[in-house]
This record gives sequence, structure tokens and C-alpha cells, in this order.
Amino acid sequence: MDASESGVTCLPSIQFYFDFISPFGYFASLQIDELARRSGYTVEWYPMLLGVSVLKVMGLKPLLDTPLKGDYLRRQMSRHLRREGLALKRSADDPMMDPRACARAYYWTARHAAPLAKPLAKHLLDRYWKDGEDLTSAQQIVDGALPAGLDPLALAEGIETAAARAMLRSAVEDSLKRGVFGSPTVVAGDELFWGVDALPSVEQWLTAGGW
Amino acid sequence: MDASESGVTCLPSIQFYFDFISPFGYFASLQIDELARRSGYTVEWYPMLLGVSVLKVMGLKPLLDTPLKGDYLRRQMSRHLRREGLALKRSADDPMMDPRACARAYYWTARHAAPLAKPLAKHLLDRYWKDGEDLTSAQQIVDGALPAGLDPLALAEGIETAAARAMLRSAVEDSLKRGVFGSPTVVAGDELFWGVDALPSVEQWLTAGGW
Repeated sequence: MDASESGVTCLPSIQFYFDFISPFGYFASLQIDELARRSGYTVEWYPMLLGVSVLKVMGLKPLLDTPLKGDYLRRQMSRHLRREGLALKRSADDPMMDPRACARAYYWTARHAAPLAKPLAKHLLDRYWKDGEDLTSAQQIVDGALPAGLDPLALAEGIETAAARAMLRSAVEDSLKRGVFGSPTVVAGDELFWGVDALPSVEQWLTAGGW
Repeated sequence: MDASESGVTCLPSIQFYFDFISPFGYFASLQIDELARRSGYTVEWYPMLLGVSVLKVMGLKPLLDTPLKGDYLRRQMSRHLRREGLALKRSADDPMMDPRACARAYYWTARHAAPLAKPLAKHLLDRYWKDGEDLTSAQQIVDGALPAGLDPLALAEGIETAAARAMLRSAVEDSLKRGVFGSPTVVAGDELFWGVDALPSVEQWLTAGGW
């Protein structure tokens, strides 16, 4: 069944890469779909792991532990929160969760209940950042708010499957192959845009059709 | 003589930090004065040294040598050049000059011929990036185009003085105390904005009077 028969409207898509533990990834997640929609694009979401890209591949320390940059990121985060009128129960300096269970939950859901994957990611991001929940384990993930229609038992099991682990590993490898290292990163065609500060350039790019 | 007597209009100012060897510092230098002017601000320019902030204080490798990030910066640079219709005779991968003579030239001029300091910086940035000149030595600096009214002999001597070295050292220390680590960085009051991608946020901040 092609789009014309089904009544489905096919839009071109861009890709949004983020790590659940990245505050700027969270901030971008709150804007990216609407930003893309304004230019007639849809957005595919891809959780990635800063622990692999930044720590292992780039060989850097965690950004918040980097002299000067850590302070800058804390200030940039406060500034962003003030501008957007956001209040979080989590600060940049709170202990970080291990984001792998959330990322596996996403990819497992994308495989088995695709339309619920993005709503799930939004729930988990809100629960981690806005509500201050720890979502390190499958149990913690299914113990709180989830999108309607997502079976918590199946999800809890799915998160721990070898298939979910393989999907995350493969997604992270793909992100590195595309050159993604930071969160958020938006990819439009072959063009990468890193950082929440780059979102205006993403919109300019989509509106102009590139340059 | 105060401003009301002299007819001078006093505007609030922001500070612009850049390294002569930073392509994004160069890009920002082409926009920052006009950006600030639109909001009724003037801009004080302060050359800084990435070799001190990034390499020594932050303990990082040069950004272009960092896996993934180096490639990203090359792509971001091309994209910026295409959008702005700029053509440079220097690429990110050409051998870098030692920027200290340029920075000392700036601070020496700021002390001895203040109104010519910013025009000098603009000349040197254009000569380095647009014309591909090497400006590592005082001789190379005075061998090319300089702002009218700036005495090349005095400048060549000034660059090598202990006073100019002390001014640069002190300026770099001050920039670090303010938390500046990258080029470009714009400081408005106590607020830091890092990166050419942050310029729209700078303008928003100045227009709104902060938030």
C-alpha cells in the first residue's frame, strides 16, 4: 500500500540524536519536533551514549568535570531554564543515571510498538529531568508513568533482552559512523548540527533547503 | 571632561574574546559589532589564547585533532563559509601560526593608540584568514596592510616589549578568571556565550535585557 492509497502524508525526515542524561539533549527534545514541523519535516529520534562517544572515542573527560567548561555548561543550563520557564527537580551536578536501560527501552519499543517509542522517550526524559527520577533499571522505568498502550511487563522484559542490547549497540555504532558525538545532534541529509545553540541554524537550513 | 561636555555618547559595552587562530572567532568578529550596535551596545575586543585555556587549563587536545569533533568543526566551518558567502585562502588544516605576536600587537596598540586597536585586529584577522598570510612574527605583522595612522616601526618594536608581553599575560589571566575558554566568547555582564552558534542568543539577551 503506498502513501497515495493509504491517505498517509509522507514528509521528509531529519534525525535527532540525544543521550537521556544530557540536559541539552532534553532541552532540544522539547523543541525539535515542532521546529521540524514548521518546515515540513518529521523527526526520527535516536538515543546515543555520550559515555561511548565522548569518553571512549574522543578520549575526553566528562564535560562537567572539565575545568571552565563545566562551569560554563552549568551557567548555560540555568540561562536556558530561565528563558524557557522550565523547572527541573534535577541539577547538572546530581548523580547521573546509567542511561542504557532507557536507550534500550526506546529501541525495543521502536521495534515492537513503533508509534509509542517517541512518546516513551518523552516520558522518560520528563521523568528523569523534570521529576528527578532515577531510571537506571528496567524496574524503575516501568514503575512510573508510561505512554498509554505500552505494556509495562513486556517492556521490562524487553529492556533486558539480548536483542535490545544489540539494537542499542548497533544504533550507537551507526551514530558514530555518521559523526555524531554530542547531545543534542541533529542530522539533516549529510549535515550535522551539534548543540542546542545550533537549533536556529537547523531551522534556517530546513527552511532554506540547505546552502 | 565628561560625556555630556564632550558630545560623546556613552553606550553600555559587552566583551568579545577571540583567538586570532580560531576560525569561529574570525567569523564572530565579522558580526559582533553590528550585532551589538543593533541593541545599543559597543564591543570591547580581547584576544585570548586557546593554547592556554584549552590545552593547559582544560587539559584537552587541540579541537581539530579530537576524533569526531575535528571533522564536525571542518564541516561547520564550510557550512558557515557557504552561508556567509566567504572565501578564505586558509583552511582549518593549514599549519597554524603562533598567535601571540598578533595578540601583543593588539594590546600594545590598545595602550598606545586605542582607537586603532580594533581596526588593527580586523586587518590581522583578514590577512590571516582571508589572505592566508602567516603573522607569527612582528616583522610579518608590519610587512602587510595596517590601519592608516598606525606607525609600523613603533608597532614592530612595541610587539616585542616586555610591557606588551605583560599585557597579554594579564589579559589571558583575566579572561580565564571570567571563565572564558573558547573562541569566540561574548560576555554580557556576568553572562558568557560561547561559540558562533550562540550569537543569536547574545542578541536575544541584549534585546531583552537578560532574563
